[in-house]
Amino acid sequence: MPQALPPTLAEDVLNARIRLPRLRERITTPEAAAAWVKDGMTVGMSGFTRSGDAKVVPVAIAERARQSPLKIDLITGASLGNDLDKILTEAGALARRIPFQSDATLRGAINRGEVMFVDQHLSETVELLRTGQMGPIDLAIVEAAAITEDGAIVPTTSVGNSASFAILAEKVIVEINVSQPLALEGLHDIWIPGRRPHRDPLPLTSVSDRIGSTAIAIPPEKIVAIVISDKGDSPANILPPDEETAAIAGHLIDFFANEVRHGRLTPSLQPLQAGIGTIANAVLAGFADSPFHGLTMYSEVLQDSTFDLFDAGKLDFASGSSITLSAARGKEVFANLERYRDKLVLRPQEVSNHPEVVRRLGLICLNTALEADIYGNVNSTHVYGTHMMNGIGGSGDFARNGYLSIFATKSVAKNGELSSLVPMVSHVDHTEHDVDILVTEQGLADLRGLAPRERARTIIANCVHPDFRDALSDYFERACLRGGHTPHILEEALSWHTRARDTGTMHATKRTLKVA
Amino acid sequence: MPQALPPTLAEDVLNARIRLPRLRERITTPEAAAAWVKDGMTVGMSGFTRSGDAKVVPVAIAERARQSPLKIDLITGASLGNDLDKILTEAGALARRIPFQSDATLRGAINRGEVMFVDQHLSETVELLRTGQMGPIDLAIVEAAAITEDGAIVPTTSVGNSASFAILAEKVIVEINVSQPLALEGLHDIWIPGRRPHRDPLPLTSVSDRIGSTAIAIPPEKIVAIVISDKGDSPANILPPDEETAAIAGHLIDFFANEVRHGRLTPSLQPLQAGIGTIANAVLAGFADSPFHGLTMYSEVLQDSTFDLFDAGKLDFASGSSITLSAARGKEVFANLERYRDKLVLRPQEVSNHPEVVRRLGLICLNTALEADIYGNVNSTHVYGTHMMNGIGGSGDFARNGYLSIFATKSVAKNGELSSLVPMVSHVDHTEHDVDILVTEQGLADLRGLAPRERARTIIANCVHPDFRDALSDYFERACLRGGHTPHILEEALSWHTRARDTGTMHATKRTLKVA
Repeated sequence: MPQALPPTLAEDVLNARIRLPRLRERITTPEAAAAWVKDGMTVGMSGFTRSGDAKVVPVAIAERARQSPLKIDLITGASLGNDLDKILTEAGALARRIPFQSDATLRGAINRGEVMFVDQHLSETVELLRTGQMGPIDLAIVEAAAITEDGAIVPTTSVGNSASFAILAEKVIVEINVSQPLALEGLHDIWIPGRRPHRDPLPLTSVSDRIGSTAIAIPPEKIVAIVISDKGDSPANILPPDEETAAIAGHLIDFFANEVRHGRLTPSLQPLQAGIGTIANAVLAGFADSPFHGLTMYSEVLQDSTFDLFDAGKLDFASGSSITLSAARGKEVFANLERYRDKLVLRPQEVSNHPEVVRRLGLICLNTALEADIYGNVNSTHVYGTHMMNGIGGSGDFARNGYLSIFATKSVAKNGELSSLVPMVSHVDHTEHDVDILVTEQGLADLRGLAPRERARTIIANCVHPDFRDALSDYFERACLRGGHTPHILEEALSWHTRARDTGTMHATKRTLKVA
Repeated sequence: MPQALPPTLAEDVLNARIRLPRLRERITTPEAAAAWVKDGMTVGMSGFTRSGDAKVVPVAIAERARQSPLKIDLITGASLGNDLDKILTEAGALARRIPFQSDATLRGAINRGEVMFVDQHLSETVELLRTGQMGPIDLAIVEAAAITEDGAIVPTTSVGNSASFAILAEKVIVEINVSQPLALEGLHDIWIPGRRPHRDPLPLTSVSDRIGSTAIAIPPEKIVAIVISDKGDSPANILPPDEETAAIAGHLIDFFANEVRHGRLTPSLQPLQAGIGTIANAVLAGFADSPFHGLTMYSEVLQDSTFDLFDAGKLDFASGSSITLSAARGKEVFANLERYRDKLVLRPQEVSNHPEVVRRLGLICLNTALEADIYGNVNSTHVYGTHMMNGIGGSGDFARNGYLSIFATKSVAKNGELSSLVPMVSHVDHTEHDVDILVTEQGLADLRGLAPRERARTIIANCVHPDFRDALSDYFERACLRGGHTPHILEEALSWHTRARDTGTMHATKRTLKVA
C-alpha cells in the first residue's frame, strides 16, 4: 500500500492548533501513528459517551489488525462513537475492553465470550491504573482541539479518562481535530488526585468551582505522533420524549414539588445528575416547565436537555465530563459556544463521578433501570441475567453516594410482553440500599426509610403496569407466607425471565393463571 | 409499683461525671426517664457493635411496653449488647429498627415481618435524618462517661450515630455510666458535616488526624433526664482463630507480600479496615507474625486484634467508631488505656465510614461474605436469599470506595453440607464491581481487571472446596454454552439453595451427578 502523506494544514491553523512549534514535526499519517501499537499492548483512548473519541488512528489500528494478528486491551472513558468499537471488533483487534461500551457488534462479541469486557464504575478505572492494579498503559491516543505552547493537550468534547491516560502512558498519540471548535479551550478543568494514603481533599465545593488547569500537562517528548483529523463526533442516538417519558417526568416533578413543600428541598433542589439516555433526557427536559429554578447539574454527560434548560433560564451551571448532543442541537451549541461557556465545565470522569464530590454536593441522581424487582434492586446491564447491554457506567458512583438515588424505567417493554418490574432481578447492579425512588410512567415509589416488605407493597401499588400487578402481588403474598426479611419463592423467583426467554412473554397463559 | 429513688453518687464522682452543676437536678430513675418515650416516637440510641449502648433506660422502656402498648422506631449506631434488642423485641416495643442488629430474637421478629428492619449503609443513616428524609428524631438516649462544664456529652466506648442523634433530637436522655473509665475522655473526635450543597471538604487526610471536639456539644437544656448506670458493655462474641481462619490469614499475607514485591504496596500497606467478626479478627491477628510494619487502621470497630497488633509493635495508629473486646482483653485494655490513648481515636460512624475518607485514604477493606457466587457477587446478609442475619453494616461503605475490597469466607459451612461459593448468590449486597479479592481457606482469587468468565475460572480454581469444585465447574461450563457476558442457567442458578433449604445439603446425590 502506498504510504500516504499527512494532510497539510494552513499556517494559521497550524499556529493555533499546535502552538509548541517543535511538535509539528511529529505530524504523521494515521497509518504511521498506528504503527506504534504492538500486539498485547494496553491502549488508553479518549472518548466518553460518543464524544471526543480519537477517530482516525483507531481505524488505522483496525486496518493493521486485519492484515496481521494484533490484539490490544482497550480502555476508554466510556462509549465510543464513529462505529469504532464495531470496526475494532470486526478486525479482531480487541482482547479486552474496559470500562464501558454501547456498540451492538462489540456487545455480541462480549456475549460470545470473544472479548473480555471489564465493566467498571467509571470513577474507579484510573484509580486502578494509577496504583498499578490493572497493568501499565503503554500508549494513549487522545483527541485534542489544540496543543498549547507548553505541549499540554486541550481536549475536545469530553475529558473522560484522557488526562490520566496521557499522564500514565509511556507514549502519547494526539489527534488534532480541526472540526472541533477552538472555542472549546478553557472549558475543561483538569485535576488529578495525589497518591494515597496522603492525598489532599478534592477541593471542589460547588458545581461551578474550577480547581485545575484547562489542558493536560505532560512532558511534550512523550507525544510520539500527531495526526490531523476532521471527523465529527457521532450525534447522540436518544429518542425524543414520548407519552411515557413525559409521565415519568411528571411524577418526578410532583415528587420534587412535594419535597420543597415539606422543606426538604429548596426550589433550586440539589445539583442534578442524569444518566445518558432517552428517559433521563426527557425527565430533565420536563424541568423546563417546572416551578424549579436556579438549578445546577453535576453530571457525567451533558445532553440536549442541559442546553434546553439553559435556554429556558432554569439552569445556572452544568458540570460534566462530556457533551453529547443530537446532530441539530450540536451544530447550534458548538457554533454558539460563547453563549454557554461561563456556565459549563468539563472534568475528568473521576472528578465528575467522584464519591467524595457526589456525597459532598448531595446530588440528586437519576439513572435508568433495565429492570427492578419488588424490593427495589436494580439491574442496569444484563438482559435475562446473562447478556450484557452496555455496562454499569457511572450509575453506581452516583447511586451509592448521592443525596437521593432515583431509578426510572418504563413499566413494560417489548409491546407489553415484558414487565420491567419482576419478582427478583436476574442481575443486580444496584442493591435496595442504593435505590431511594423508583419511577415508571405508572407512578413513583418513595422507598426511603422502608423495610423490604413495605418497599414491595409500595412498588407494586405505584410502579407496576396493571397487566402485571396481580401476578406480582400474588408472588409477593405467597412469598410472605414463607417468611423472611425479603420474602421470595426461590424456585419461582427467576421464572418470569425464563418464561420470557423461552416464549417471548412474561405473561403466564390464562390457563396457568387460573390454575394458580 | 413504688417509685424508686435515683442512686446517690459520691461528691467526687458527681463532680467528675456531671461537671455542669445545674444539670445534676436532672438525675432521675430509669423509669422516670423512660416516661419521656411516647408511643410512635422515633428514638435514637447510642450503641455500636455492642459497645457504648444506653443500658438501663431501654430496659425501662421495655418494661413500660409490657404494661401498655408502646411502640417506637429505634435507630442506633449498629448492634446493641446487653440483650437490649431481645428485651425490646419481647416486650413488643419495636415497630421499626434501623440500621443494623445482630440479635437472634429480633432477627426472628424481622423475618416474621413483625418488626420492620431498615438495613442501611452505616454512613448514610444520619445523612437521611439530617435532611429530614427519614423523619425527625424525637428523643436521643446516649450513654456517656461524663458531661462537661459546658454540658457537652463525652461518649464511652463507641460514638456511632450518638452525636447526630443528640444534635437532631428534641430531647436528650443521658446515661452516665460510672463503670466506663473517665480516661475515655479525649479519645473521641466529634465532627459533623455541614449542610449541602455548600459543604466543606471533610478535613481528614491521615488516620490519626483530629478534626473535631472531644465531646458532643448540645444546648444543655435539651438534656431532660440523666440516669446513672454501672452496667458494662457486652463482651465481643467472636470465636478464636482456627485452622481455616489461619489459612485465610496466610493467603492474604502472601498476597500482600506479593503486592509489596511488585511495588504496588509498601510494607506499611494502606490503612486497614476490618469488619466485625471471627474471620476479620483472625486475619488481623495474623499480621502479628507478618513482615509488615508501621500499619494503620481506619475501621469502624476495633477488636482484640487491634490491641494485639499494638502490643506486637506492628500497628502505629487505629481509628474506629467503637471498641469491642473480649471480656479478658477488655478488662486489660480499659485498665491500661493510657498505654494506647495516643494511638487511638473514636469517630462518628459517618466519618469512620465516609466514602470521601475511604477513597482518599485508599483503604484496604476486609469484610466477611455469607456466600459469594462464581462471578464474585457477595451476599453478606440473607440466608437462602430471604432470611436476614444481621445487616449490611459498613461493608458497602468500604467495599465500594476503598483501594482494595476483600471478602473472606470459609469455603463450606454446616459440616461441609453447604458451599459458600454458589452458582448465583441468592441475595446481592456487593456486586462483582466491588469485589477485588475473594479468599477462603482453600486459596485466594485476585479478580482485579478480570471479566466475569475469567473471574469464574479464578474463583473455582482457587476458592471452592474440592467437594464442590466439579459441580460448580460443571455448572459454569454448561452455562457458557448458552453464551452471555455473565453466563448462567437461570432455571438452575438458585437450585443449590433450594436443595439445601429442603434437604439440608447442597450436595447433589451421587446418582444425579452421574446422570449429569
